[in-house]
Amino acid sequence: MKFVSFKLNDEERFGVVDIETSSVWDLISISQDSGLPCSSTLIKGIEEGEHFIKNVEKLLEWGNNNENNSYLIPLSEIKWLAPIPRVAKNIMCVGKNYREHAIEMGSEADIPEHVMVFTKAPTTVIGHNDPIDAHTDITDQLDYEGELAVIIGKKGKKISQQDALEYVFGYTILNDITARDIQQRHKQFFIGKSLDSSCPMGPWIVHKDDLNNPNHLNITTKVNGEIRQNSNTEHFIFPVEEVISVLSQGMTLEPGDIIATGTPAGVGKGFKPPRFLKQGDVIEIEVEGIGKLNNIVK
Amino acid sequence: MKFVSFKLNDEERFGVVDIETSSVWDLISISQDSGLPCSSTLIKGIEEGEHFIKNVEKLLEWGNNNENNSYLIPLSEIKWLAPIPRVAKNIMCVGKNYREHAIEMGSEADIPEHVMVFTKAPTTVIGHNDPIDAHTDITDQLDYEGELAVIIGKKGKKISQQDALEYVFGYTILNDITARDIQQRHKQFFIGKSLDSSCPMGPWIVHKDDLNNPNHLNITTKVNGEIRQNSNTEHFIFPVEEVISVLSQGMTLEPGDIIATGTPAGVGKGFKPPRFLKQGDVIEIEVEGIGKLNNIVK
Repeated sequence: MKFVSFKLNDEERFGVVDIETSSVWDLISISQDSGLPCSSTLIKGIEEGEHFIKNVEKLLEWGNNNENNSYLIPLSEIKWLAPIPRVAKNIMCVGKNYREHAIEMGSEADIPEHVMVFTKAPTTVIGHNDPIDAHTDITDQLDYEGELAVIIGKKGKKISQQDALEYVFGYTILNDITARDIQQRHKQFFIGKSLDSSCPMGPWIVHKDDLNNPNHLNITTKVNGEIRQNSNTEHFIFPVEEVISVLSQGMTLEPGDIIATGTPAGVGKGFKPPRFLKQGDVIEIEVEGIGKLNNIVK
Repeated sequence: MKFVSFKLNDEERFGVVDIETSSVWDLISISQDSGLPCSSTLIKGIEEGEHFIKNVEKLLEWGNNNENNSYLIPLSEIKWLAPIPRVAKNIMCVGKNYREHAIEMGSEADIPEHVMVFTKAPTTVIGHNDPIDAHTDITDQLDYEGELAVIIGKKGKKISQQDALEYVFGYTILNDITARDIQQRHKQFFIGKSLDSSCPMGPWIVHKDDLNNPNHLNITTKVNGEIRQNSNTEHFIFPVEEVISVLSQGMTLEPGDIIATGTPAGVGKGFKPPRFLKQGDVIEIEVEGIGKLNNIVK
């Protein structure tokens, strides 16, 4: 299932995408009419745990058996939101998790021996099709980073690599927009990674049952139609299981936590001369088995 | 006013400390009996903005004029909580903001030219008197860092240094507990700074009206009664106003945001040989005009 958050009549809603009809099941409306239980937002559903998927399956069954087509809203008509529009903590991001990207950012000496994690503020998050602020008054080195992101579905600590994927709710696409000049100036990455609107996320969360191996997915980033990043998550230095395990050794992971898994080679800074983002640029990130995340720099 | 969050009958409450009687005004109970408005938690009050302080003043006036002494709860009887027990985003921490500390962590080359900020996960937060987990299975270099912390009171972006203190709600004390071995291993500081219980905070928030200049406060840290850190915030490389201004140039600051301002020289790692924390150690951090934050390593 593909879970999408959206706005309807200025109210946050969520639903399940129906690919065949390019529309989304409005679960809240089905719940209201059927009396079947439904969490009010996607993040609350994720926090509910096991029950959630079963509840959604019942809602979809009721919707499918009902002749009222108003439960299916065309995707072309919704205002997209990030799947979790307001995250309860910073997004955790793995730095330099692809060998070739580590090298393009410096040299072979930059290939990390241990998982490196920084964070992005919750205020950075925007949805599919939302504009990215160019922040031209404070940076002239705005850069894209296409990434697979993991959504945690279950509270856990000291998680083994073997058990790690049991703690995943699903996967989405994330653009770790970075101001390279600010990132470099302030050493620790947080400030340069936390400009408002610097974390496009979506278009939806694919439930883990529909995506067998997160460590074997094609990932591409296009800018204005030109392929800039083209790799596969099989090139992760630290696969998803290891990242989850390392993070959780001393820190409790919680449902709704988001972990961005790092970006492959081909970021703007990696070109000679660098090719940073400018106003009007259209960025499209595609991850196999998930979909495409589109945003324009305004 | 000193705002404290605490538990009463397993329910989160907050109140204002009455130093003379070593007790706390239970504002929720006063509100229930008086019918005067009161936010349900301290963080909700901070988010309310200007009204909040006026509401609290009315509640205190009603409490003072009432003969029912049950509104005053002895501090010795409360279960202390961190003033904001569950923060809505990671705590932002300034790294190396005292010259002598930067040097003890390396050399003069470590004195930063620009504000350096990393974050701690919300799951790290504990209150006054709460035990700090020694995490002996994953670190043998647990260290203390006594710090002044700033609580943001008003949403803002591109805040000038001149206006910065208008965006502050108040100040508290924070212990930026750090696993030095993990911090070093993972380069970016997040993982080594985010172990569960690694962010004792409190005992209360002093409203900004009661603390004129955050850049001129004595700060000391004692371990088992021995002074380890002894400085004054006048030695900040980047004063509070500059930190707020730099952070907000590209990122919106929000009510309840917490900024730890960095630690002075005298951390365990700075000694030769290093003096890391061990189980049973009692840490007491005192900041002038605020109070004392006590925690024991368990």
